[in-house]
Amino acid sequence: MFLAADNLQITDPKVARAVELMDPGPIRDLVKRCVKSGADAVDINPGPLKKDPGQKMKFLVETVQSVTDLPLLLDTTNPDALAAGLAASSNPVIINGFSLEPARIERILPLAVEFDADIIGYLLSPDSRVPVDEAGCFEIASELLVCAEKSGLNPERLIIDPVVAPLVWENGARHNRDILSVIRNLGELYGFPVRTIAGLSNLTSGPAPYAARLTMETAFLAMMADAGLSIALLNIFHTQTVACARACNILLTSDIFAWEELARFCDQSVFGPTHKPDKAG
Amino acid sequence: MFLAADNLQITDPKVARAVELMDPGPIRDLVKRCVKSGADAVDINPGPLKKDPGQKMKFLVETVQSVTDLPLLLDTTNPDALAAGLAASSNPVIINGFSLEPARIERILPLAVEFDADIIGYLLSPDSRVPVDEAGCFEIASELLVCAEKSGLNPERLIIDPVVAPLVWENGARHNRDILSVIRNLGELYGFPVRTIAGLSNLTSGPAPYAARLTMETAFLAMMADAGLSIALLNIFHTQTVACARACNILLTSDIFAWEELARFCDQSVFGPTHKPDKAG
Repeated sequence: MFLAADNLQITDPKVARAVELMDPGPIRDLVKRCVKSGADAVDINPGPLKKDPGQKMKFLVETVQSVTDLPLLLDTTNPDALAAGLAASSNPVIINGFSLEPARIERILPLAVEFDADIIGYLLSPDSRVPVDEAGCFEIASELLVCAEKSGLNPERLIIDPVVAPLVWENGARHNRDILSVIRNLGELYGFPVRTIAGLSNLTSGPAPYAARLTMETAFLAMMADAGLSIALLNIFHTQTVACARACNILLTSDIFAWEELARFCDQSVFGPTHKPDKAG
Repeated sequence: MFLAADNLQITDPKVARAVELMDPGPIRDLVKRCVKSGADAVDINPGPLKKDPGQKMKFLVETVQSVTDLPLLLDTTNPDALAAGLAASSNPVIINGFSLEPARIERILPLAVEFDADIIGYLLSPDSRVPVDEAGCFEIASELLVCAEKSGLNPERLIIDPVVAPLVWENGARHNRDILSVIRNLGELYGFPVRTIAGLSNLTSGPAPYAARLTMETAFLAMMADAGLSIALLNIFHTQTVACARACNILLTSDIFAWEELARFCDQSVFGPTHKPDKAG
């Protein structure tokens, strides 16, 4: 399981100002911190970019590429911004993403074909709703594959995002149980080992106690990892969650184990290296 | 998923001394702390009890029952200690446990029938080795069921322990991946929804950095929970692990969610209630 940082987003006021002023400094600093915190890829989320979309996205891609060779996720609904970002990319790139919404099929999916890029397909209905059940997820997954093939995309370029629901939604927990099964079984439906991605920050969106938020992230991330998730999109500064992801990778793939592999990802300043309660009190 | 505390064990010097002196105070204090920390059951592990096994086990059972009504796991290989413990139990009780080792089939399994108690069966070969692969686990699971039925035990009294391997073992991680599949699929093999238990402390046995140990516990516990584990036997003072277990239960069973359900299990003194790093640095 790879980790993509969702930290470079326009909802962050520092990012918003840097994009507005085309000031590379704060973006570079942020991306350097993401890399240091364990990111395997960086999601660039500039929002819809109503003003100068092409110029702003080119600036962002070039700025990120000036400090890292990691893959980039270009995360915008604006096709002009996407096209400019793709043209500016020298790092490996993933378009994030398209859905069954007609405008996205018509304007975003063809960019993946044109630039021979990976593209994320969201398991959402054409009007951007979460499917009501697992069968609905599989139905949409089939339609996404048909769309992708019709457009001329190599199906192996497709990465499926089953769309994690906020737990505070009425059916959030139930939907998230469905998507564990979707991640586990999608390869069988498609007939090839399709990659999957999930946005973990969605799980705890809204106000939440910080410790409980991290606890919930770690629990659900481990479940998704075991189900076979390829890419977790998350807040890479959530040290506990990132350490859990490393633990998952060790549990799911390693043959020989040494504690050093994991210990360096655990934030001793948070957990406390010497905090070891005596068993009997 | 229920949580059984593995903290009441003879390897703890305070417990060893209390058992030696038949001093109930330290045992009561420990059990009260276990209950307060979220235990749903208490494992009583007095070791083989070579001296006065019956008297010592009776003392332990009565002492624990004097402070809690929770179910007890009687965790000893000594049949005389077990019989005395079973006779002294008024709380619900689980025998922990038997295996295909002939002495255990002959002397321990019949006690479950005699006392109409739940009993744990370990997925170990007759010479107490961990099976080499998943097929080996299922083979032993079948043999345990045959043994149990032959002895006259109601098969629903059987709880299967697939035996978590220490990660530092050469094939530890691989074996633990097998047991995730065993937990997930055992009900299909048996033809009824058999309960399972796993000893989480085994995973990280040996010297390990504390933060990394907890991270590994949370990751694997979440995977086992998703696979359908019924009972996790663990160090109930590992607050981060216990909070993760609560998060798992919410993720796997709840329809309506409120953060308060989880927040009270998160140790704010460890995680820090105000530790919320600014997104952009």
